[in-house]
Parts: sequence; structure tokens; C-alpha cells
Amino acid sequence: MATWAFINDEFIREERACIHFRDLALQRGYGVFDFFRLEGQTPVFLNLHLKRLFYSAREMHLPLEKTEVELKAIISELIARNNLPNSGIRITLTGGYSADGYQVTIPNLVITQQPFQSPGKEQFQKGIKLVTYEHQRQLPHVKTIDYLIGIWLQPYIKERGADDVLYHQQNILTECPRSNFFIVTNENRIVTPAQHILKGITRNILMEIAREKFEVEERNIRLEEVLLAKEAFITSTTKNILPVVAVNESVIGIGSAGMITELLLKLLQAHHQKRTSVS
Amino acid sequence: MATWAFINDEFIREERACIHFRDLALQRGYGVFDFFRLEGQTPVFLNLHLKRLFYSAREMHLPLEKTEVELKAIISELIARNNLPNSGIRITLTGGYSADGYQVTIPNLVITQQPFQSPGKEQFQKGIKLVTYEHQRQLPHVKTIDYLIGIWLQPYIKERGADDVLYHQQNILTECPRSNFFIVTNENRIVTPAQHILKGITRNILMEIAREKFEVEERNIRLEEVLLAKEAFITSTTKNILPVVAVNESVIGIGSAGMITELLLKLLQAHHQKRTSVS
Repeated sequence: MATWAFINDEFIREERACIHFRDLALQRGYGVFDFFRLEGQTPVFLNLHLKRLFYSAREMHLPLEKTEVELKAIISELIARNNLPNSGIRITLTGGYSADGYQVTIPNLVITQQPFQSPGKEQFQKGIKLVTYEHQRQLPHVKTIDYLIGIWLQPYIKERGADDVLYHQQNILTECPRSNFFIVTNENRIVTPAQHILKGITRNILMEIAREKFEVEERNIRLEEVLLAKEAFITSTTKNILPVVAVNESVIGIGSAGMITELLLKLLQAHHQKRTSVS
Repeated sequence: MATWAFINDEFIREERACIHFRDLALQRGYGVFDFFRLEGQTPVFLNLHLKRLFYSAREMHLPLEKTEVELKAIISELIARNNLPNSGIRITLTGGYSADGYQVTIPNLVITQQPFQSPGKEQFQKGIKLVTYEHQRQLPHVKTIDYLIGIWLQPYIKERGADDVLYHQQNILTECPRSNFFIVTNENRIVTPAQHILKGITRNILMEIAREKFEVEERNIRLEEVLLAKEAFITSTTKNILPVVAVNESVIGIGSAGMITELLLKLLQAHHQKRTSVS
């Protein structure tokens, strides 16, 4: 566990990282966040995550009073104080303490660090099973704290022996609650939804890397197409790439990690290493 | 301000009513609540609010470990300690402290009391203006803490000189973020949406009272019908009844509190007084 957290203007002991009940995140589920990994003690894609945080804050009318430089200094100090390698850092910006319990005021800024392990080889080989559910996330392009439906569906997911849910609207797939979805077609095209989703940082980087070897398409994917796909996988900051081996009751491809998914993971890892050694 | 609040198993000073950052309400916007008024020191419709709280908790898979009797005892003690007449009490049940930041654990129960004033005669006479917005609330039948869109729309509402937003789906009206919507037709029928809404406690009581004098219909209302209506109003625990005098740029009826809306307010107040004097 981390020892230190940061709230607003001070470092405090993690066990005392509390927010008063009047905050709009607690009262009304109103806030944004971002989360990035450390490789060793080095943040991965920090600039991209901070850029997205500022974008999310602006879209949600939440003034973020710190500059990017100030946030980086706080993050550096937090990393040094906690000395917690291979962990993740979450930056949350809430609606703030509201007198009437509804109007946004001065946001609370909370930065916390937690131990974190990316999925290992075994989990990659096993892959994950998804179940579909018709739902469109609210403000999908913004990284808000709204995971109401994703968490509410946990019993639904477990009853079906699945690992997570894949949202769709009238059979057009969008995303999982915390990751982006891809398929590999029988023509070896890499395809991922274009609309009504959060365009994840790992998703965007993966598309860039994949384009060097494959045709990559951003477009609508219907459920029927997934069931005929050669491979499928998800991407996220925490999971990197994980093969999707079944959707609902249908096995995808060979029912375990596909060759192209494996290749893409290797390319992504090589890309990470190159960046980490540079920074 | 209230002096005391209650968290989980103890009364604490209100200024110390804090929740640790790991709670799923803060991390993922996951929780339910209810809110009731006091007339003097007497809770209004307490049984109905508690019934709804238990229903919300069950629907959201949140174990509420207290019984109704236990909750009533806590509420009585809170009222006695704070001695804050004409106030409101909010009971919140969160997703609890979650090790992985996603799975529901043991909820945190937070009970707080705050000063509260129902709208006065002047505000009633003036009425309110609504703007419409296409949106369907998530899990509308459950009183969750999700007010993401309602709060996010605040600048949109203010720019249009309105007081609140009225949601619709393809021109079929549903509700406001914190209140139910009614119209009075030119044939003096009281009509309110039936589907995809939170069926508020004041809404249900008003329908019961109105049925003694009017025909009451629960059915779809299209925006076009509102613009032709004789009167329109909203109901909620905090607002009781408030006339809606304009929707978007269109004046409704005479553009101020209508006669039937006034009559319904009087009937509702009489109903409140009868109940309060009994209890």
C-alpha cells in the first residue's frame, strides 16, 4: 500500500485521504479522473493522460487550478515519497463541496497511488469472456467517474461466467466499461468501433503501432461480425492487451490467444520499452 | 447547520462526516440515497422514503444492514441532537470501500441533516421555466446518486434563462432530474408520464389527492401537447408543487401559476397537515 496521497494542496497519509460528505462526487456522482501506470518508477504516457485529464475537466466545467508542470511536480514527489514500483496513480477531480448539494463549486483534487500488476502470461493465454448488454455510456468521450451500469451489471456478468461486459446499441458494439474492443477479421484487418466511446490511450497507441503491419479500420462493428472474427481483444491502461476468447456463448476464433493479438502485444511492449528507456 | 451526522454506527460531528477516498461513490459514482423533509421536528412520509431506500439498495445490490426500526431510532436521535426544525434528512448508502476499486463491498451508511426551506408563495406565483433535453436517466426507477447529466447541463440551462431541464426521448417527456412533471389539459385532466422515470413520493400522493376531483392519467406526453396545455407543474419532496410557466421559448397557459395547480397545492398542504397532526 502507498503511504502518501495528495489532496488539494498537501501530501497526507493515505489512510487519512478522506473527502467530506458534501462533495458532489459523493452526493451526485459528479467528477472526472485519469489513471496511469508506472514501469518501475516511470509514469507511462504521462503527457497523454494529463492532456486527457485537462480535457475531461474542461468538458465537465470543473476548474483544474494546477498547471501541467505543477501536477508533474506533485506526481514526482508522490512517487519519491511512496517508493512503490510497478504501481498506478489515479488523479481525481470532484465536483467539490456544494452548499446546495447541486451546483459545482471548487473541485477537490485527489492523487493516490496503488500497487498494480498488469495481467501476466497465463492470463493472456487464457483470455477473457465477455457478455453483451445494450447500453450507451453517458458522455462517453469524457473520463467521468460514472461506472453505475458497469458495477450494477457485476452479478449479471458473474451469473454468465463472464469476466466483463461489452456494451452495444442495437447490436452495434461500442466498448467495455473500462476498456476498448477490437476484432481481427479473416482478412487480417484490425477493426475497432469509432463512435460513442472513450478513445483510450492504449487504444490509440495500439492503432498507431498496428498500422505499420496491418490495415486498421475505425468503424461500426455489428455483433454478428464479432462472432465470425478470427480474433478479438480489449485494450486498456491496466490490462494492456487481453484476448477475448468468447462473447456470450460463442467462442471467438480458436478460443484462446490469437497469433495477431500476440504479435500486437509484443509490438506494444517493445513500444513501451523504447519510450521508458528514452524518458 | 446541523451539528451531528451519523456514519455507519456512530454519531459524529457534521464537520467530520468524511468518507475515505476508496469508497465506490467517490471512485465510481456508485450509491443510492433518499431525502425527506421535516415539518417542525416531524419527518414527512418517512415510511414511504424508507421503503424506497430499501428498494433502491436492493436494486443496486447494496446490503443495508440496518432494519427499518433501527433506522427510525437513529433518525429520531439525530433530530433530537440537532434540534433543527424545517430541515431535511438525507440517507446515503455508498458502494463501500473497495480493494480493487470496482467490486461492491460493505456499503457506508451516511445520514445527514440540513436546513431546508420549501419554496414560498412568491416563488410559487412566479413559477419556473424549463428547457428540454434529450436524455434517458440510467436505472430511472432507482434513486441512485447519478446526477451526472443534470449537473453537467447547468450552464446549458442558465444560458437559456431556465431554472431546470425537462428530459425527453424522441419528444416523449419523462421527468426533470430531481422532480416529476405534470400537465393540466384543456379538459382539466391531470396527466403525468408513466414510463422510464422515478415515480416520486410527492408525485404518487398528488395523483391520489387529485383523483378525488379530477381525472388523472399516467401516459406518454409529447412535447407538442405540453405547449398546448392549460397548466404544467412539477412535484418533488423539496419543492412540493411548482408551476411551470414556460418550456423552451413557449409560455404555458397564462404564464403564471394556474388555478388548478394552486388548488392542488392547497389540497397537498391540507393532506400534509392532516398527516403531521396525526403522527
